[in-house]
Amino acid sequence: MGSTSPTNVDVLIVGAGPAGLMMATWLAKCGVNARIVDKRGTKVFNGQADGLQCRTLEIFDSFDFGHRAWLESNHMLEICLWNPDKDGTIRRSDRIPDTIPGISRFQQVVLHQGRIERFFLDSIEGCSDIRVERGVLPTKLELDESLVDDKDAYPITVHLRHLSEEEATPQQRSTSANGQSIEDGIFRSNLSADDTQELLRASQLNATANTEEIVKAKYMLGADGAHSWVRDQLGFTLEGESTDYIWGVLDIVPITDFPDIRMRCAIHSADAGSVMVIPRENKLVRLYIQLTTTQHNGGSGGRADRSQINPDVIIQAAQKIMAPYKISYRKLDWWTAYQIGQRVGTKFSAHERIFLAGDAVHTHSPKAGQGMNVSMQDTFNLGWKVANVVKGLSDRSILKTYELERRKIAQQLIEFDHRFSRLFSGRPAKDVMDEEGISMEVFKQAFEKGNMFASGIAVDYEASVIVAKEGQPITSSQSLAPNIKLGMRMPSVKVLSQADARPWHFQELLKSNGRWRVLVLPGDVSKASQMEKVQKLGEALSKKDSFLRRFTPEGAKYDSVIELLTVHAAPRTSVTIFDFPEAFRPYDELDGWDYWKIFVDDQSYHEGHGQMYDTFEVDREKGCVVIIRPDQYISYVGPLEDYETVDGFFSTFMVSQQTGSAI
Amino acid sequence: MGSTSPTNVDVLIVGAGPAGLMMATWLAKCGVNARIVDKRGTKVFNGQADGLQCRTLEIFDSFDFGHRAWLESNHMLEICLWNPDKDGTIRRSDRIPDTIPGISRFQQVVLHQGRIERFFLDSIEGCSDIRVERGVLPTKLELDESLVDDKDAYPITVHLRHLSEEEATPQQRSTSANGQSIEDGIFRSNLSADDTQELLRASQLNATANTEEIVKAKYMLGADGAHSWVRDQLGFTLEGESTDYIWGVLDIVPITDFPDIRMRCAIHSADAGSVMVIPRENKLVRLYIQLTTTQHNGGSGGRADRSQINPDVIIQAAQKIMAPYKISYRKLDWWTAYQIGQRVGTKFSAHERIFLAGDAVHTHSPKAGQGMNVSMQDTFNLGWKVANVVKGLSDRSILKTYELERRKIAQQLIEFDHRFSRLFSGRPAKDVMDEEGISMEVFKQAFEKGNMFASGIAVDYEASVIVAKEGQPITSSQSLAPNIKLGMRMPSVKVLSQADARPWHFQELLKSNGRWRVLVLPGDVSKASQMEKVQKLGEALSKKDSFLRRFTPEGAKYDSVIELLTVHAAPRTSVTIFDFPEAFRPYDELDGWDYWKIFVDDQSYHEGHGQMYDTFEVDREKGCVVIIRPDQYISYVGPLEDYETVDGFFSTFMVSQQTGSAI
Repeated sequence: MGSTSPTNVDVLIVGAGPAGLMMATWLAKCGVNARIVDKRGTKVFNGQADGLQCRTLEIFDSFDFGHRAWLESNHMLEICLWNPDKDGTIRRSDRIPDTIPGISRFQQVVLHQGRIERFFLDSIEGCSDIRVERGVLPTKLELDESLVDDKDAYPITVHLRHLSEEEATPQQRSTSANGQSIEDGIFRSNLSADDTQELLRASQLNATANTEEIVKAKYMLGADGAHSWVRDQLGFTLEGESTDYIWGVLDIVPITDFPDIRMRCAIHSADAGSVMVIPRENKLVRLYIQLTTTQHNGGSGGRADRSQINPDVIIQAAQKIMAPYKISYRKLDWWTAYQIGQRVGTKFSAHERIFLAGDAVHTHSPKAGQGMNVSMQDTFNLGWKVANVVKGLSDRSILKTYELERRKIAQQLIEFDHRFSRLFSGRPAKDVMDEEGISMEVFKQAFEKGNMFASGIAVDYEASVIVAKEGQPITSSQSLAPNIKLGMRMPSVKVLSQADARPWHFQELLKSNGRWRVLVLPGDVSKASQMEKVQKLGEALSKKDSFLRRFTPEGAKYDSVIELLTVHAAPRTSVTIFDFPEAFRPYDELDGWDYWKIFVDDQSYHEGHGQMYDTFEVDREKGCVVIIRPDQYISYVGPLEDYETVDGFFSTFMVSQQTGSAI
Repeated sequence: MGSTSPTNVDVLIVGAGPAGLMMATWLAKCGVNARIVDKRGTKVFNGQADGLQCRTLEIFDSFDFGHRAWLESNHMLEICLWNPDKDGTIRRSDRIPDTIPGISRFQQVVLHQGRIERFFLDSIEGCSDIRVERGVLPTKLELDESLVDDKDAYPITVHLRHLSEEEATPQQRSTSANGQSIEDGIFRSNLSADDTQELLRASQLNATANTEEIVKAKYMLGADGAHSWVRDQLGFTLEGESTDYIWGVLDIVPITDFPDIRMRCAIHSADAGSVMVIPRENKLVRLYIQLTTTQHNGGSGGRADRSQINPDVIIQAAQKIMAPYKISYRKLDWWTAYQIGQRVGTKFSAHERIFLAGDAVHTHSPKAGQGMNVSMQDTFNLGWKVANVVKGLSDRSILKTYELERRKIAQQLIEFDHRFSRLFSGRPAKDVMDEEGISMEVFKQAFEKGNMFASGIAVDYEASVIVAKEGQPITSSQSLAPNIKLGMRMPSVKVLSQADARPWHFQELLKSNGRWRVLVLPGDVSKASQMEKVQKLGEALSKKDSFLRRFTPEGAKYDSVIELLTVHAAPRTSVTIFDFPEAFRPYDELDGWDYWKIFVDDQSYHEGHGQMYDTFEVDREKGCVVIIRPDQYISYVGPLEDYETVDGFFSTFMVSQQTGSAI
């Protein structure tokens, strides 16, 4: 690793936080040649962001580690709103479900970032040779604009410097003014057993310390945080406003007689301020408290002086707000104080070669538990697109959809955070005549509305080459499946495997492996008219130049680029998979017929009836065809009889793999 | 490790198959000083036993690895019965659910023994320093009978010889007569990533090879298989009969047009014999086929010549039975041929110091998927008892219940296997007049009945010092909770945590950590009359000499020996945990109040209503108290008002930990 001859890599990721790791996981699953570097010497072990939306859990599950987060996390079921009564004493005024019932098979949970990084790292190690290279700092970046449209070129040149262990250890000691020795960043009192390997690796950094190397890359991701070096090199900026609010955050094992300490609570006191309670794993509770600048440092304006804040200041504020209940602690896990701006990046990519994601393109307050989720979902949106382009399966046109789709989400996030923070920071209204105070009815409504946004399920991507909504040359027929909504993620109900009667949540079949899915809903195939349509579709799919064959490389498995899944609505016992044409249950010389492609909407023995056709409002005597993106978002809904439009959809951006032919 | 000075250990386990590992897991969880040795150099990696009853999954879940088995296994949902029609062609005659709906939150699954051993090994490593010592052979065993009643003595002396790698590698090459090179035992083509460490360890055996040591133990377990060395040393025998039947077993990835190949099937042909189909993980299917001795080796009588059998013989037999469907394979994972006796041990223990478990005390056919389950459940029954005695919490009287409880189960197993094998081996009756043939109606009924036994849920232990059924000095009142049955395992429904509204399956609260549980069902505590009883019970429990205090060692956590759990039936929102006396939600100086002891039978936001009181038929205006053993079996049901009987129950076998006092 000298500094002389450059090495090539298809994708270089800068930053191994959740956004960078999500990208690396996609590339690992898709078999792409990639590197991921981070200037810190170790992953984080506690503290930091920790809310997980139900959509994020669905995504984790698509990478096979949803259950790890689900088992280790604290589940939040209910939000309790506490407000002053007419005597000024706080009372529980409302209970709201934390996750809106029915929107997902998961509910919002809390687990600290260190564990989530561990899941990603294990997933990457399980399927690839990609390893996070820690203590590595990029020092120079060049993009050769003359090469950006050449799909085989390496237009990006990056210099990387390998740090010593000392340089790579962030200085995150306490900022407290009173000399208290609790650290507010990486401290290791509660290391998980599977993290010890990390520490051993960190101590090996010095072997390569102070060497430099040059890397040439086809694509690059800057997931390097709010102070992104990659963003600075590109000359891109964030737009928005900073706030005066300083927030204190305290992670403690509380000793308290407050009865809702294991609920998520928003507590507004009459005149001592507000606290947000977030119950966490391992008996911990997080308290968020707004500490106004004027109260604590004399209001020097602009960026406030956070050095006056320490755990004592925060707990004392909590005690005032939560009186007459008592709260104290003997175990302190982590604390911090922050002041944050609400800003969005002007551009999310340079020539669709260098991309920015996560805090590098949106910063905001952490209270709604959104930041880590939206950051991971940025690269969940991007990863499969880059992978498919690098692998030569798709042309570069799909890369433009990253900024189109994610910048809008970032803007919605900032608006949500702005509204939510203002409401939360406000003083409760004393009565209906108190116009400066915040009406608790308004607050509750905002919370309920916010919950839908905060679940991550409401994401609705715009029309593009990969979302055949109105305005695109490819036309969908949304009315054939009104509840499988174009641009939104595929909803899930239980279906049964035709071959073995096992119930699966439909989403469980949509693993994140880079594949597109064509979902055929043929309706009631015990009706001859429907089975006839299935036979016709089977014929078209079996042709040598069908989209199933044309876009799949020679020698690759039949379902490795586009996977055909079927859920029919005839009684399970009325058919077998051999009643369907072979295209629906392909044959392999070694493994025989594929028993895992045909499903049925029917009663299970132990887990009820998913009612897919009724839930999605699909007519059993019409049926439909749905195209599902590799990230589970819906591209297209159309008639069962219309093979041509499905073929046409893929033809607009996929690259034919048949020798001598191209689109 | 010379052969001179003996080392002491509390418990020595011989045999690291599923029964031995279950024992080691209990001892690890309970913090007991134990060693486990096995003569083989590595664990098994494929083949061998593989059905997991729903009760076994409940047990795995109590050790925190139920989800690993559930995720990796193949789930079996339906049994299909295939029989000849009047033209002699096989037809599907019936479908039966594989697991009776409603009996458990799990259903029967299939996963090979190598993975199950891996889960045990990981669980043991996660909580203790106990490691399986492989390549270690016991050579001499002495039991000093004069010391067996002295609770502090080490009456057992064992000589252990450490083998070389060569000696420790079992010779399990193919027994095939045609020179085919497929191995039928441990072969490593499909090693899991987390098993590679095992192979590395095996290669280190030679460091200690040929040394010998002497171990003195308080207790010992022989879980060393059908040819148990420990059993032989004790002079104990198995009683029962051997059979003439030879069975061939083949694990393949089938290439077949038989439509039910992913179902569990019993296929009876008109005159070509029977095959049992067991669909497995990784696309594998196991075929069990009876190959009668007369057909294949000329009927030499007694133990048959298995050397004539090979995979070709087995698949050809399957092809004849399954015609007109075709079946072949390109991938063969494992195969074997066996002839087995149905026998039960006369004694399960010597002086309640040396115990036998698993195949060492019961052998039978593997077809019903029972052997591994019953073996693990032997030591699931034994482990906590030995742990509690070794730790000085319980007197030796509870050890007698092992043979009482498990020998009866072994006998039931043999009866079940006998009946089941005979039915399965028989020729189908041609019509109602054909008295020698097996009526398929009889066969179906036997299957359905057998399913309840085969689930493991039907286990019902007899009256003893730890099961207060009729005839015991402690009297239960079964009528207060008719569906929480004395002697059977605690059934499970969902309840909500009072403090955070999270739904839990009640069984999830009953982790295997050696603790007894007292479950208080106080009924509707929003009624003053019920709350009054709760207050009175709280007073008794808080006394310095209550059973909660008396049997818990000084300095140990309040719930480490007997844990108090409560499920009330008032509306969740009508109370908080602070409405209950402190005994129900104890206080700790570091952690504050315990929020995880009080639950409620109420509607959840996302997972329905468990209806515990209705399901178990507990009167909301009476309530009851239930004592649950550390292995989830029910000891006692009695009135809410009767503190004294509960105290009396524990007093009969538990050892007071209060200084200067004893029972």
